[in-house]
Amino acid sequence: MANRGPNKRGVETRGKLLVAGMAEFHARGFSATGVDVIAKTAEVPKGSFYNFFESKNAFAAEVVDLYFERHQVKLRQCFEDKSQSALSRLRNYFEERIEFFRSIGCVRGCMMANLSIETADHVDVMRLRLAENFNSWSGVFADALREARHTGESKSTANPEVLADFILNSWEGAILRMRVEQSVKPLEDAKAFIFGILMPN
Amino acid sequence: MANRGPNKRGVETRGKLLVAGMAEFHARGFSATGVDVIAKTAEVPKGSFYNFFESKNAFAAEVVDLYFERHQVKLRQCFEDKSQSALSRLRNYFEERIEFFRSIGCVRGCMMANLSIETADHVDVMRLRLAENFNSWSGVFADALREARHTGESKSTANPEVLADFILNSWEGAILRMRVEQSVKPLEDAKAFIFGILMPN
Repeated sequence: MANRGPNKRGVETRGKLLVAGMAEFHARGFSATGVDVIAKTAEVPKGSFYNFFESKNAFAAEVVDLYFERHQVKLRQCFEDKSQSALSRLRNYFEERIEFFRSIGCVRGCMMANLSIETADHVDVMRLRLAENFNSWSGVFADALREARHTGESKSTANPEVLADFILNSWEGAILRMRVEQSVKPLEDAKAFIFGILMPN
Repeated sequence: MANRGPNKRGVETRGKLLVAGMAEFHARGFSATGVDVIAKTAEVPKGSFYNFFESKNAFAAEVVDLYFERHQVKLRQCFEDKSQSALSRLRNYFEERIEFFRSIGCVRGCMMANLSIETADHVDVMRLRLAENFNSWSGVFADALREARHTGESKSTANPEVLADFILNSWEGAILRMRVEQSVKPLEDAKAFIFGILMPN
């Protein structure tokens, strides 16, 4: 029991660093964000960072998991709503994301995509976490596509897993272009073409 | 005439810096690459960088133009080959890119996409150059799509400009995922789905 206080404080400090790192990596990028900035944002002494994480890379791999854990809450909100058809759930997800990006001015994009571009070639521990989380994300789409095909709502005869990956990658590409254009039009167009594949005229 | 020597040397130094910056930004990223590294790679004194460029951002905007100028050579090789049908030219372009990325081990990706992610929110001079070059690139696809629709080769009734943007964005998303997966499968799948839209069974 004597250690309970310090351990609890340690868990809190660790959590604060991860939340701060997520915000800073998302807003400024991985290379542009130093450990000192993360510690300052988290309001913890810089020296304590390395008590909890062996390196910035190991830390960032955990930030990726935290980010995707939070995104999974949003995915569940959309995709577990069985009062909607499978493709309506997918459409609701896209529409919610479009409204979100419109509301924040088309900035920041997807932190997982951003970190992929900055680190995939150089940091295997991050690349593997990114790969795993992209696969989980795509799996949520694939479940909906499988159901939509089963009920006849989707007319696509493509393998649901492969189609789900294409949809996720196309969506990430549209988010990238959104930031360059400062407009949600690429997202609106991606949604329309994706539904053109699923529900052709 | 007295100034000709120094001017010529100046032009050469400037060009060396741009080529070095392109290689370093592509391999390591924008934030991870300092001006000192660029000058070292270019084998010019660090101090001379600011004789030619007012800032790293202004320099990077010119690097974007140089990169896209070089990519346009490749685009022209594929899309000006009128011995091929319009959609064959698009297919050849994708296949050439897939072989290229396979040959280098699925790394680096597209420098324009990489710089978009790192700078679009923060550096307007770069965002605007990226937007303009993405639009030119998409325009090359749109010309082929317009021709393919005219000849009946493409069955898509979508606006060629909007479809071209979707194709380019989906391709960029597939390149991003390629780096995470260390596999060209996302590119192969993107090609197949894009041709599924253009030439449905």
